[in-house]
This record gives sequence, structure tokens and C-alpha cells, in this order.
Amino acid sequence: MSLDAITADSVSERIDQARAEWILRTVLESNLLPDHASSFLVHDLERMKQRLGEFKHAFPPSTRHSLAIKANPLVEVLKVAVGEGFGLEAASIEEVELAIAAGCPHDRIVFDSPAKTVREIERGLRCGVIINVDNFIELSRVDEAIRMTGSNSAIGLRINPEVGSGSIAHTSVGSVGSKFGLSISEQRDQIIQAYATHPWLIGIHTHVGSQGCGLTLLCEAVSKVDRLRRDIESEVGRPISIFNIGGGLPAAYLARDNPPTPAEYVDQLRQSAPGLFQGDTTLMTEFGRSIQANCGLAFSRVETVRQLPNSHKLAVIHFGADFLLRPVYRGEDWKHEFFVFDRQGRSSSGHEEPVTIAGPLCFSGDIVANQISIPSVKENDWIAIRDCGAYTLSMWSRHCNRAIPAVLGFDQGRLSMLRHSETAADIVQLWSSGSD
Amino acid sequence: MSLDAITADSVSERIDQARAEWILRTVLESNLLPDHASSFLVHDLERMKQRLGEFKHAFPPSTRHSLAIKANPLVEVLKVAVGEGFGLEAASIEEVELAIAAGCPHDRIVFDSPAKTVREIERGLRCGVIINVDNFIELSRVDEAIRMTGSNSAIGLRINPEVGSGSIAHTSVGSVGSKFGLSISEQRDQIIQAYATHPWLIGIHTHVGSQGCGLTLLCEAVSKVDRLRRDIESEVGRPISIFNIGGGLPAAYLARDNPPTPAEYVDQLRQSAPGLFQGDTTLMTEFGRSIQANCGLAFSRVETVRQLPNSHKLAVIHFGADFLLRPVYRGEDWKHEFFVFDRQGRSSSGHEEPVTIAGPLCFSGDIVANQISIPSVKENDWIAIRDCGAYTLSMWSRHCNRAIPAVLGFDQGRLSMLRHSETAADIVQLWSSGSD
Ligand SMILES: Cc1ncc(COP(=O)(O)O)c(C=O)c1O
Ligand SMILES: Cc1ncc(COP(=O)(O)O)c(C=O)c1O
Repeated sequence: MSLDAITADSVSERIDQARAEWILRTVLESNLLPDHASSFLVHDLERMKQRLGEFKHAFPPSTRHSLAIKANPLVEVLKVAVGEGFGLEAASIEEVELAIAAGCPHDRIVFDSPAKTVREIERGLRCGVIINVDNFIELSRVDEAIRMTGSNSAIGLRINPEVGSGSIAHTSVGSVGSKFGLSISEQRDQIIQAYATHPWLIGIHTHVGSQGCGLTLLCEAVSKVDRLRRDIESEVGRPISIFNIGGGLPAAYLARDNPPTPAEYVDQLRQSAPGLFQGDTTLMTEFGRSIQANCGLAFSRVETVRQLPNSHKLAVIHFGADFLLRPVYRGEDWKHEFFVFDRQGRSSSGHEEPVTIAGPLCFSGDIVANQISIPSVKENDWIAIRDCGAYTLSMWSRHCNRAIPAVLGFDQGRLSMLRHSETAADIVQLWSSGSD
Repeated sequence: MSLDAITADSVSERIDQARAEWILRTVLESNLLPDHASSFLVHDLERMKQRLGEFKHAFPPSTRHSLAIKANPLVEVLKVAVGEGFGLEAASIEEVELAIAAGCPHDRIVFDSPAKTVREIERGLRCGVIINVDNFIELSRVDEAIRMTGSNSAIGLRINPEVGSGSIAHTSVGSVGSKFGLSISEQRDQIIQAYATHPWLIGIHTHVGSQGCGLTLLCEAVSKVDRLRRDIESEVGRPISIFNIGGGLPAAYLARDNPPTPAEYVDQLRQSAPGLFQGDTTLMTEFGRSIQANCGLAFSRVETVRQLPNSHKLAVIHFGADFLLRPVYRGEDWKHEFFVFDRQGRSSSGHEEPVTIAGPLCFSGDIVANQISIPSVKENDWIAIRDCGAYTLSMWSRHCNRAIPAVLGFDQGRLSMLRHSETAADIVQLWSSGSD
């Protein structure tokens, strides 16, 4: 697909029922999975490449994009991003190693953890990855480590723009008192001082939250940090060459969601922070959710359906709080929609009725959706959970120790194995004493 | 330690600061961990054996105890339980394999998943494990599989006693409309019918919830199910030889918690369900939390301490929602207490002050404790999180992909390696395409 063919709003397009059916039937007709497989995940690589392309298209060509690994850490998926010219954002030193395993050039890896140890900093510097420093304690450690390693990694400071929380407090990091970054109001002088005394400090970084933050909040943060950048540049007398705006563009999970497109984000950024587009600083991004969420589908066979005595129907599927951690533990903030297919993978034409979808874990709170309206389901039907491409598999919890199912890639009708399903032996290995 | 030396209330004894200091200093003086290790877990095997002994002591000698694997799945820990004569309760077929790997006799393994597939049922039957059937759909599958395999596994039915929720709705499974088991009120006739038509149905099972359920609720459930057992026996004309009361005895997490002891539970059971102690049915248990929670400590170096602009102190440690999933996502229900030690492992004598303890994950909700009062901490001090032996490591979430730290066993001053720390290579392996 050429970049020109990407319409401005394709980023909010979700996989529709027809495409989900095509995917499911392709999988069922393939011999990639055993007949008895009761669940699997699909990542739509074609769609992912479209998203990546759309971000590249919306931002100035000089922008250095990176994809947030924490949204989806599969090495085969990361390789797709690297192949499209994206760097990778790492939330931990382990994610730096994932980026390296995916073949990402080291100077396109951004290391962003808020709890970097001295050894991790040294390792990052030796690899030459970009590091965003979270606080002044870390800054002095980086200073020492740079002296020791002579690294010329690009280093930035993370600024807390203090723009308040989005609608989901749990994932909004830009409010006063957040655990992340330096306070733009209270620590302003020390921030400028830090740039004055550390000539290798060439970047500035901010990130407001993941999901729940609208364009106004995102742009206000960037604009505040851009004003700070100008002040630093004029007081310190040298340019700040990297401006990292983080991620945080929301994704659509429900029919009523209408998230802004990358192009709309850039339009609004041009108005609120015009200085970013004058060519004296290189823009950098770290999107995750808005690229990945809509590319993922989770398919589960319906294991049992029964009428509960108090009269609602209960369908038990093979994904619960292990895969849908936030929808189960914070259902008020995180919801998904569903498609129903029969056992051959044909879209269900049943009438809609209220159903509670329960996960397979042994605690009663393991409810994936409470009394939602979906086409009538029966045993051995398939349920697809939509928009599962970000912060689902990547947050997999071991509770009850069920094996991670296979993850398949889908690209123009062709399937690939992105990750084989775990086996019981893998779980035994996980909890055994491990290698020296 | 002989059984006689176990006092009635030792089950609510938690590891105190002196013992935690002993453990920490023993670890720091050993060469089991590299000097730079920033976190590790300890399971107090001596204490665990005491707990196991206390349960054996409190219940009639004929009781068949099993330990809930989902509370702590480390194979080395499970082996300790097996060595003390406990069976193991499995919430998934993978946990059945963990039990087998721990050397548990198959007829002491209880398979309890609410979403068993046909293949899993067949596997369970072929292994000869005990199976508790969750619902009638499953019952007919088990029926077919028994014909096919000729297995003589002990099979029970799970009954929902409908006694209402405990104080934590998320983990209380015994209320009307729970996803687990058969309704004791609405499905009474079908339950009796099931026993009448399936001669291999020799057990009855109930479980009310995990934490938040007091003795009254637990005993009411058992008593209701015992009355049902009597009715079944008289109507069907044969004994039900296994009565599985599940787990659910609460553990102490806070100084003010005063959970009932096993002996108190048994005393109250003798009053509310005297029929259980007349020798015509064998009691079975599936405790997890009340045995394991207080045996675990998590130690983290304090990575950074800083004063946030809005005036509270923030200490960043190496455990967040990856390890403390429920305390982070459901902090209103799940809380832990902390000890502070200096870098040499000596108990801190600093004055108490309010501190927010933040985890290392990249989202603002990753707060382990909000403005609690603890002795003043500084960089490189150690913080011990108390009562981390159940439903913490076992629920490990991959969010941000930090490696699972080493887990050490502690037994009368001797350390053992229960699980080596994961490496970055293990994480890369986890998200790579996997073996065929
Ligand atoms: C520093 C940083 N950058 C980028 C991201 C990605 O955010 P999103 O996936 O919402 O685009 C996150 C996620 O929380 C983050 O913490
Ligand atoms: C069926 C069953 N048995 C036993 C347990 C163990 O409960 P606890 O760890 O609270 O003793 C659980 C936990 O939820 C369970 O679901």
C-alpha cells in the first residue's frame, strides 16, 4: 500500500467482523494450529504496517519514530517496526535486549525506565542507546558512567509537564506529583542548570499518559516543554537537538470511540508548538497503543455456556485476567468489544442477548465482560476479542499458570507463526530452579 | 519442630523484623547473589513446614490436605509440601503438570479448573488425578471420558453454597450468580440426580473465596454443603466419601489483622458441621494463602529517594505491578507492610515519615504504597515487603518485561536457591517464536 493511499482516518479503523471472519477461517483452514487449540492470538501485520506508515506520513520526514515495546514485545512484531524504519522504546534493560534481538540499530533504541540501576545505565551507554534521564539522582549516575565509558549516547531529560491527568488516572503520568520526570514548575532552574553543566545533554523528553489523554492535554504538554526548551537554549546557548514527545495517542476500543488521527495530532501540534516544526530540533515519538491496539484479535473457543440461576447467561472462555489484566481488574476504565462466530468460523447471525463472559481463572472477579449484549453463543463457538494488540499479551500474568497461546501474524491473507504456544513443560521450566 | 510445640496461634505469626534482618544479612553475607542484585525473594521453608504441620495437627488425622499451587507454584516449594504429606491443588492442566513435576502422587493431585477442555479432562483422568466437576456440561464430558479411558479417578461435584460475598468481592466465589459450581438452591434436584446416575461421583467440593471470608461465612458454606451431602446420601443410598472444603482461610497482612487459626476453624466446623467428623467421609482441604502468604518476603534495594515538588517523599523500588498486581490495581483491598534496612542489612533506626513507594513500571498507577509511614529511607537501603509468599510471584505480570528475581529458600539459617533469577536472554526467549 503506498503512503498516498492512506486516508487521514484509517488509524481509527478497527478490524471489522468481515476481516475477523477472514482471519479466523484462514486460521481454521490452515494446519498451523492443532484442531483442539482452544485459543490463539492474531496480530494483523498488514494493518500494523499501515499504521506505521500513517505516522510516518503525518509527521515531518525528519521525525525519528520509535515503537513502545511494552505495548507488544514479540520479537517478530518488533522486527516489522524496525523493517519500516522505526526505532524501539524500551521500558527496562530487558526491553533494550529485546530491541537488540529485533535487529534495531542501537542509536534508534530509547531507554526510558524510571528505575535504572547503575549497571543498567552503564549497559545502555556501552550499547550506545538513547537514554532519557528520569531524575537528578539518575543524572549524576549517568554523568559518572559517561566519564567511565566515554559513551556518546544521546541523552535527554524527562520533564513532567504538569498538565493534569487524563480520564484514566492510573495511566496518566503528567500530573503534579507523578513519579516520572522533573517538575517543569518547581525544578525549572535546576533543569536549566543541568543542561548548562552537562554538554552531552542534548535531548528533552515528555510523555503524558497512555489512553484517556485527549489532544488538548497532549498538545499542552508538548507546548509547555517546547517553551522550556527555548528558555534552555537561550540561557545555555546551544540547541537541544532531540525533542521526544513520547506516546499516548489514544486508540479506539468501543464503537463510540473516535480517537484523533496522527494527522490531527500533528495539525494541532503545529498550532500549539510551532517551534517544533522549524527544523532546529528533531522530533522523536514513542507511540505504542495507537499503532498496536487495533491490530490484535484474541480468539477463544467458548468452553461452556450456561444459564445461571439468577437468570443471566454465562459464557466461559480461555482468556481472563492472565491476558486481560486491566479489563478484569479495572473494568471501569478498560473495555473491549466482541465478535461471535460459529465453530466453522462463520459470523454468527444469532439474535443479541445479554451474556457475561467469564475467564478461566479460579477467582470470581475473573469476568471479562459483565452482561453485555452479543449474538447468542453456544459451546464451541468462537469469540473474538477486538483491539487486543497492545498491553494485553505484553502484560500476561501467570495467575493459574495457563500457557500463553500461539500468536499468528496475518498479512494479506498469509499467516505466519509469531510465537508458538507455550507448553506445560515451559510452565514447569518457568517455576523450576532455572539455569545458572 | 515437633507438632506439640506449635502453639494455636502461630499461624497468624508473621515474619518479624528481627527474623527479616537475619534473613537479609544471611543473604548479603552469602555468595548466592551477585553484589549488584537489586531485588530478590525469600520463602521461609521452616515457617512453611510449621504451617503445614499446624494444619495437619488441627484437622483429624485422616484429612487429606492439598496445597493450592496457584498461591505459589515454585516446584521446589511444592516439593516441600509433598514431602510433608500434602497433595497439591491445580487450577489448570499446567498446574497438574507442575504437581507431577514436584513428585506428587497422582491420586493426591486435585484438578479444579472452571474451564476444563475435553482434552484436559482426558489427560486428568489418564493421570488418575482427582477432578472436581464445575458444571453439568463438564459432567457429561467427564462421563464420556470415563467410558473411554476407564479411569478410576476420584470425581467430585463443585457446589456453590450461596452464602454471599466476603469483604473482597473480587475473590469471593460463593455468592449467588458466581461463575463457579452448581447452585445449592436452584440446582439441588439435578445435583442429587447427578449422584444417582453417576456411581463414580464420590466427592463433593466447595470453596468460598480467598481472603476476606471470615469463619462464619466459611463454616456456613461447609455446613450447607454437608446438609446437602446427607440428603444426597440418603436419597441415593451410598456414601460420599470425599468432602473437600476448599481453601480460603485468611492470612494476616497488617498489624491489626487477626485471622482465625486452623484450630479455631476446625473447632467452629465441629459445631456447624458435626457430621464431617463422624468418620463416614474423608475431609479434604485446599489451603494456599493461609499457609504461604506469611512465609514470603520480597527484598528490594531502594533505587532512588526524592522529595516531590508537592512535598511528599517518593522511594522507587524494584517491585511494582509485575509482582504486586493486586496491591497496585486493587490497592483498596490489598495492602502490605514494610521493613526498612540499611545497605548492610541492619534494621533502620530512622524516624518514621510519610513516603510513597513506587514501582519500576512505566505507568503512573504503579504505586505500591501511598504515603505510608515508615522509617526514613535513603538510596541503597533495603525495603522488605512482608507477607509476599502467596499470589504475588505466582501472578507475575510481564508488563515492562523486567526479569523475575532470584527466589531463595530459608530454613534454619540455611539458604537454598529455589529459582535462579531470570536473565534478559530468558525474556528474549519468551517473546521469540518459541520451539516447535
Ligand atoms: C515513556 C513512555 N513512552 C511511550 C509510551 C507508550 O504510550 P502509548 O502506548 O500510549 O502510545 C509509554 C507508555 O506508558 C511510556 O511510559
Ligand atoms: C478451588 C480453590 N481451592 C483453593 C483455593 C485456595 O484458596 P486460599 O489460597 O485462599 O486458601 C482457591 C483459591 O482461590 C480455589 O479457587
